[in-house]
Amino acid sequence: MASSAPILLTPGPLTTSERTRAAMLTDWGSWDGSFNGLTASLCDKLVAIANGSGSHACVPLQGSGTFAVEAAVGTFVPRTGKMLVLVNGAYGKRLAKICEMLGRDHSVYETPEDVPTTPEAVDRLLAEDRAVTHVGLIHCETSTGILNPLPEIATVVARHGRRLIIDAMSSFGALPIDARAVPFEALIAASGKCLEGVPGMGFVLAREEALLAAEGNIASLALDLRDQHLYMQRTGQWRFTPPTHVVAALHEALLQYEDEGGLPARHARYARNCETLIAGMRRLGLRSFLPPEIQAPIIVTFHAPRDGRYRFADFYQAVRAKGFILYPGKLTQVETFRVGCIGAVEPTDMERAVEAVAETFRELRIETL
Amino acid sequence: MASSAPILLTPGPLTTSERTRAAMLTDWGSWDGSFNGLTASLCDKLVAIANGSGSHACVPLQGSGTFAVEAAVGTFVPRTGKMLVLVNGAYGKRLAKICEMLGRDHSVYETPEDVPTTPEAVDRLLAEDRAVTHVGLIHCETSTGILNPLPEIATVVARHGRRLIIDAMSSFGALPIDARAVPFEALIAASGKCLEGVPGMGFVLAREEALLAAEGNIASLALDLRDQHLYMQRTGQWRFTPPTHVVAALHEALLQYEDEGGLPARHARYARNCETLIAGMRRLGLRSFLPPEIQAPIIVTFHAPRDGRYRFADFYQAVRAKGFILYPGKLTQVETFRVGCIGAVEPTDMERAVEAVAETFRELRIETL
Repeated sequence: MASSAPILLTPGPLTTSERTRAAMLTDWGSWDGSFNGLTASLCDKLVAIANGSGSHACVPLQGSGTFAVEAAVGTFVPRTGKMLVLVNGAYGKRLAKICEMLGRDHSVYETPEDVPTTPEAVDRLLAEDRAVTHVGLIHCETSTGILNPLPEIATVVARHGRRLIIDAMSSFGALPIDARAVPFEALIAASGKCLEGVPGMGFVLAREEALLAAEGNIASLALDLRDQHLYMQRTGQWRFTPPTHVVAALHEALLQYEDEGGLPARHARYARNCETLIAGMRRLGLRSFLPPEIQAPIIVTFHAPRDGRYRFADFYQAVRAKGFILYPGKLTQVETFRVGCIGAVEPTDMERAVEAVAETFRELRIETL
Repeated sequence: MASSAPILLTPGPLTTSERTRAAMLTDWGSWDGSFNGLTASLCDKLVAIANGSGSHACVPLQGSGTFAVEAAVGTFVPRTGKMLVLVNGAYGKRLAKICEMLGRDHSVYETPEDVPTTPEAVDRLLAEDRAVTHVGLIHCETSTGILNPLPEIATVVARHGRRLIIDAMSSFGALPIDARAVPFEALIAASGKCLEGVPGMGFVLAREEALLAAEGNIASLALDLRDQHLYMQRTGQWRFTPPTHVVAALHEALLQYEDEGGLPARHARYARNCETLIAGMRRLGLRSFLPPEIQAPIIVTFHAPRDGRYRFADFYQAVRAKGFILYPGKLTQVETFRVGCIGAVEPTDMERAVEAVAETFRELRIETL
């Protein structure tokens, strides 16, 4: 069943290893010492990936990554605070929507979907608006695959004495983020992305002092990261029933991450996947949407063929029948589709995916050249 | 690994079947039609358990059961509403805490942990306080295992024209709740309880009209059940990354639930588990905390032995070494421990658990008789 299932070239959920999935064959007691040990080990490993050991804490949270983003905004931005949200895609817009839903004052700075936010723009915006207490940035926008210049923006935000909240959902573990060099208030990611776990939990990295100072901000019990952190510190347990099997899978995935060689090795594999994919698609006549210098090796947006016979739904089903699940485009102006480079996949898988796309075009008589 | 793992006699996470866990060996694309089909089938089955097909919708939500409870309170109780929270244990208190965190006006009616709420009391409280718009009830309080008289209370609430929110976390699927006879605004349960899935998602059953009428209530993006429902209706997909493997496991667990004979069979097995457990423990000299008439066949609270040599931590570890994970007590006044009757376990497992407890008492030289 597992081996005949299609390969997911989607940016989470993604293809996981058999070893990671097999970790879900055991039931764990959420109160038991062995599970508490698993949680503690998981948090240590996540903090270490960001080079935050000794300075930063990891607060895991049940739910999808968006739950953790909302929890971070609610927990860290005071009710009287104001967030500058940097937007160049759907996830930036979602961050602004979260501010709106939580009733947090915010302003939005939007660039086109193929234009990264610049540190100069952030510098100017922060100089202009003294009311801004926090800046929200999407590190890699999955809606296109664009990479925003995190270290440079973080430096500017810190120089202005403001606090940075990073949505690193689709970059954490694959693109370097060094907590000793990149100042942030909170960094958010999730189990089912570049760490190659299964979806079902997010986590937030933050300094202990920031967590303690966040008292009384959030109007939620479930999403209160400060309360989750304090309870976990006191008891070793999650406040509410943890997704035990998801936790076990992520822990097993992290052991494999270490075996592979950690972040540099993961980054290198994804970069090879991305290069193989783009080169192969170029041979078929398909252009990627972003220029290489701002293309993160996470997910690639391709222009759809101009041939009138192309319809995404048919294309998707035909490629799926050949064993690969692609992702629809998320751009409003241009017809595109997306292909993920992340998960337990290798350059040879990307070559086979390109071949499946080529066959599909032949079958559907779609001209691309 | 799976077969040597201890049996969880805890009220969720609990022991699941191998078949349920094996369903997590496949990765699913969250955008793919096959996964959408799985979600739709899951929701149909959950609605059918409450006899709500055609009248009620199921809104699944990522996270633990508490996330779904908070989502239901926030989504269904208007900001100008007021909830009467009926409390006889920790989960009732948590419901009141959720009202407090969300800024919803509420009053608390508390009975001792071994005293069910009566419909007469609810009748009087609703007559006295016209401001109350919603009533919150815990069907089975896992902190003791007490059963509250849901149908009778629901009738009273409806007669007063108020709306009922039921936390049926640890009863749904095992104790009958008929949506055609028991009027409610929302009923909340989760994957990892009597349906014997793995933890990681909750769900809310509600009438379509109630969901539509709930616009603008909740100050949250992630926990907005109305938005989740409308999006799912439109697209067949979850708004945010679903816990795909948890969903697949719950679906597989529901197929087994049907194979077993549905609710009557599940109820009967748990009742036999509970009787076997209580009878066995009684032979060892251990008394259960609740009288039989208010004891739900979900989890049993036992008085700890009075012997000064008894310490829960030692007792727990020794029973665990024999293959069974018990649960600590949650009462503040009395020293107790708890044993779950739910999960993929049979009366023979309960007998073996009793034998493990007996051996442990002999080893630790604890007198119980």
